[in-house]
Amino acid sequence: MSSNYRNFRNNVLWLILFLEAVFIVLFYFLFSDDDASRSSIFYPAFQDVNHMVIFGFGFFLTFLKRYGFSSTGFNLLIVVLGVQCSMLIEGLLVFLLQRENEDGLKRITKAVVSMTAVVISTGAVLGKTNPVQLILMTVVEIIVFHMSRWINNTFLQVPDNISMMHVCLFGAYFGLAVSSCFSEPSPRSEKNASTPTSDLLSMLGTLFLWVFWPSFNSVLAVNDKSKAIYNTYLALAVSAATAFVLSVLTTKDGKFTMTHIHSAVLAGGVTVGYAAHSIEYPWIAMILGLLASVITILGSYCVQRCLNPALKIHDSSGVHFTFGLPGVLGALAQVILLVIKNWNNLTRLGYLVTLHVGAFCVTISVALITGFVTG
Amino acid sequence: MSSNYRNFRNNVLWLILFLEAVFIVLFYFLFSDDDASRSSIFYPAFQDVNHMVIFGFGFFLTFLKRYGFSSTGFNLLIVVLGVQCSMLIEGLLVFLLQRENEDGLKRITKAVVSMTAVVISTGAVLGKTNPVQLILMTVVEIIVFHMSRWINNTFLQVPDNISMMHVCLFGAYFGLAVSSCFSEPSPRSEKNASTPTSDLLSMLGTLFLWVFWPSFNSVLAVNDKSKAIYNTYLALAVSAATAFVLSVLTTKDGKFTMTHIHSAVLAGGVTVGYAAHSIEYPWIAMILGLLASVITILGSYCVQRCLNPALKIHDSSGVHFTFGLPGVLGALAQVILLVIKNWNNLTRLGYLVTLHVGAFCVTISVALITGFVTG
Amino acid sequence: MSSNYRNFRNNVLWLILFLEAVFIVLFYFLFSDDDASRSSIFYPAFQDVNHMVIFGFGFFLTFLKRYGFSSTGFNLLIVVLGVQCSMLIEGLLVFLLQRENEDGLKRITKAVVSMTAVVISTGAVLGKTNPVQLILMTVVEIIVFHMSRWINNTFLQVPDNISMMHVCLFGAYFGLAVSSCFSEPSPRSEKNASTPTSDLLSMLGTLFLWVFWPSFNSVLAVNDKSKAIYNTYLALAVSAATAFVLSVLTTKDGKFTMTHIHSAVLAGGVTVGYAAHSIEYPWIAMILGLLASVITILGSYCVQRCLNPALKIHDSSGVHFTFGLPGVLGALAQVILLVIKNWNNLTRLGYLVTLHVGAFCVTISVALITGFVTG
Repeated sequence: MSSNYRNFRNNVLWLILFLEAVFIVLFYFLFSDDDASRSSIFYPAFQDVNHMVIFGFGFFLTFLKRYGFSSTGFNLLIVVLGVQCSMLIEGLLVFLLQRENEDGLKRITKAVVSMTAVVISTGAVLGKTNPVQLILMTVVEIIVFHMSRWINNTFLQVPDNISMMHVCLFGAYFGLAVSSCFSEPSPRSEKNASTPTSDLLSMLGTLFLWVFWPSFNSVLAVNDKSKAIYNTYLALAVSAATAFVLSVLTTKDGKFTMTHIHSAVLAGGVTVGYAAHSIEYPWIAMILGLLASVITILGSYCVQRCLNPALKIHDSSGVHFTFGLPGVLGALAQVILLVIKNWNNLTRLGYLVTLHVGAFCVTISVALITGFVTG
Repeated sequence: MSSNYRNFRNNVLWLILFLEAVFIVLFYFLFSDDDASRSSIFYPAFQDVNHMVIFGFGFFLTFLKRYGFSSTGFNLLIVVLGVQCSMLIEGLLVFLLQRENEDGLKRITKAVVSMTAVVISTGAVLGKTNPVQLILMTVVEIIVFHMSRWINNTFLQVPDNISMMHVCLFGAYFGLAVSSCFSEPSPRSEKNASTPTSDLLSMLGTLFLWVFWPSFNSVLAVNDKSKAIYNTYLALAVSAATAFVLSVLTTKDGKFTMTHIHSAVLAGGVTVGYAAHSIEYPWIAMILGLLASVITILGSYCVQRCLNPALKIHDSSGVHFTFGLPGVLGALAQVILLVIKNWNNLTRLGYLVTLHVGAFCVTISVALITGFVTG
Repeated sequence: MSSNYRNFRNNVLWLILFLEAVFIVLFYFLFSDDDASRSSIFYPAFQDVNHMVIFGFGFFLTFLKRYGFSSTGFNLLIVVLGVQCSMLIEGLLVFLLQRENEDGLKRITKAVVSMTAVVISTGAVLGKTNPVQLILMTVVEIIVFHMSRWINNTFLQVPDNISMMHVCLFGAYFGLAVSSCFSEPSPRSEKNASTPTSDLLSMLGTLFLWVFWPSFNSVLAVNDKSKAIYNTYLALAVSAATAFVLSVLTTKDGKFTMTHIHSAVLAGGVTVGYAAHSIEYPWIAMILGLLASVITILGSYCVQRCLNPALKIHDSSGVHFTFGLPGVLGALAQVILLVIKNWNNLTRLGYLVTLHVGAFCVTISVALITGFVTG
């Protein structure tokens, strides 16, 4: 036991130190100068996203009794390492492909948004990994996610801000693939129990995510930011209301179950992410929010009953139905909206649909394959 | 018992679903297009107000032991339904009166600010109603509040942002009127007990409200936003300091009582709400903060001892002295400031005073009458 | 006992009332008019700093079991009194020295930033003082801090925003000097114990400080705000990662110790504060973050073992190594960066180095001397 611990301790130690050394050296070569001109990122919006990733996801994952304390801590560690890693890869891509340089604030914002994928994946493997595995997963996932984005950007000409919105989808399926490679813990183990306090903290995390999701969806939008905020807010509102309804419906005693609300409240925001800046009528966003919420609750029912035992997936915090399914719905909705919009122009329609479906398939398959490999 | 529960469950279910269906259909007809031009609302200020309504009021009301968990949840449900309802009514008014259309972000901001009235009323009836009644109260109150604002705007020519500031006053007296129609629960019942944890959460909610109140008072101001922020901050600061003093004074053992601080800390912000953008000297704001705090603490003493038993009002979370009395003081202060300012011009003075007193009376009486009817 | 309490109660009472009366009267004379023109302070950045001082420091200091509740309360009381006091002194200086008047928002922002010194000092004396002493310390410290800034500004020509960054340094050493004059409580007393809940709250406070530190470092920067944010974020990120490493290293069982992480996570932000807007390469900020974190952890080891018993300092919440040592490192780093930058121009170099070293010495010595006197 003691030698195990010493081993583990040394591993974590050297791993973090090694990563930090690599980061500093590479930062030295890559980011030589930074012009202090106007940033295209609005500072308060960045601060909202930062707030959301640190607090929202930090508390969102505290609902298992034993992980309350460490989950906020590890979340910080992972975010901090991942952001540096993500900035480096972005910098390398800029250097290798001779792309235009971006200012510092935009670089950090993109890195923080990318980190959402890793944090979501962490939710799927929570309680089954040790810190060393988590840190390695972070580095691998960030690299793979940037690779998948690079494929989407260059071969499929998906705009940068749209390809970034695949982040929830990627995170959920990567996490599931990694998770399926670990043995399932005994379902009644003490580790998976939740307490009232941890439930409250988790509710707090959900509220943080709910409040800041409009900032998350709009921070990288080039224009139409205010439309993205408007649509996201409405989708979130409808999806929160529906979550309460369906939660009453699916429990026997008619009380509100916090775990259902927990996941369904956010579904609308995830779904509307892809199309938030292009939806023209608010009622479309509202219907998307409604559908997302329904899919999440039904998903949580069906998936946990049928699919998970069959595929031997153990999804600790339900990232599949919280982020995965609404993400799929969102990608689908985006394609349908495109079809309706470009009905007159069939060649362009075909082209665009191919693009989006392609980007979707690339993201999912890269996530699943690399997830298995990492696992 | 079982059939009761099933009944209740079905009622909540169909009520929320029905409301959502109505909302989506009406949104379809009302909000046909939305121009993505510059919004007059500053996004971070909206985010502050949103944050404040969800977190601040969510936790502010958790101080009763049994309502900690559900109060944050119900708060979210009510806010979400109320915002949609409020946007609809605003949209209907725009459509019927052929007023100028507003952009999406401003529409949501106004809806969130209006919701403050409902959330405050909820505080007065907490622990005496079931969810169905709360949801119905939300819808009725939002409709009545918009009616009262419409009367103020058209007949009394009160500017839009001032009529919005009647929100605390309206919420408090509507809540009291509704509350007086319910039977008073036994004062020693377990439901009204508070625990250290719930007290801490409640303190947290108060801090959230305290921090974001300057944003709340300034978000709808057309110009002089920075003056509104400055005055509100000073009024809040003085009122917080006074709250500590008076709390020591009114308890026997000389300790700070959190429940007194709890309500008096915010009094300054409520009072200064009406005149925040027009107060020219900071010391006026400071004196208003001082008076508001004194009135709240004295109010909490006198009202709970004499008035409440006489009128048979049971005010669960003290909204009367937290939001009601400071609101009255604020309206009074606004009139006095007007008198001082327009001393030379007596006709204009009389006109303005009539207007403001009229608006005040309309708000209070509409709130009380409809509150009784709703109850 | 009873008369003691009555005494204490009356003292607190009259002290706060007296201060408030003085404040209002002086505000009446000093701040006669306020132009509502554009403020140079960005409102959301002010809101972040306000949020950080109220929530971050409020919870940061809750880790002792008995002070959870009162520490957030007292923190609010002290901040509120200190901000008014600080605005007054600033106003007096403007009036006496015929300096240019500043707008209201900037005045409040500077006052809130100055208050950080007091809040940090409070951390050092927590658990050893009663409220009356704390309030007196607040007033004295604010006056002395403004005096020290005034010396730096007039005699050493340090720019205003740099002299403000001495706030952490000043607060830490003032607090230590005051603390050393109080008798050390018995080390095993129940008052210094911490509970899991209070640890979690303290972690929450740390996260608040971590998230908002970039706003704190950039809010008063005249230009290059975005560079200051970028550098601060990176320094914080590296220092958080290093904190985890060193925490594993210094404990026997290889687990993460929250108290170490607690203090080391912020070290990077404190260190980089002086030079945040002038560091040109991100890797410099990262190395500073690394060094700051190492110094904090080593400091917490050495200082608590050797120095504290020798000098009989009892530093309740470790402000010496959390804010003091990183502050010293930051001042040092600023000088070294200046040396490297102005290598060619030796006269200018000598001049600048003298200035900064002078400002540093003035700050430290004023802090220590007045701290002892106050104690």
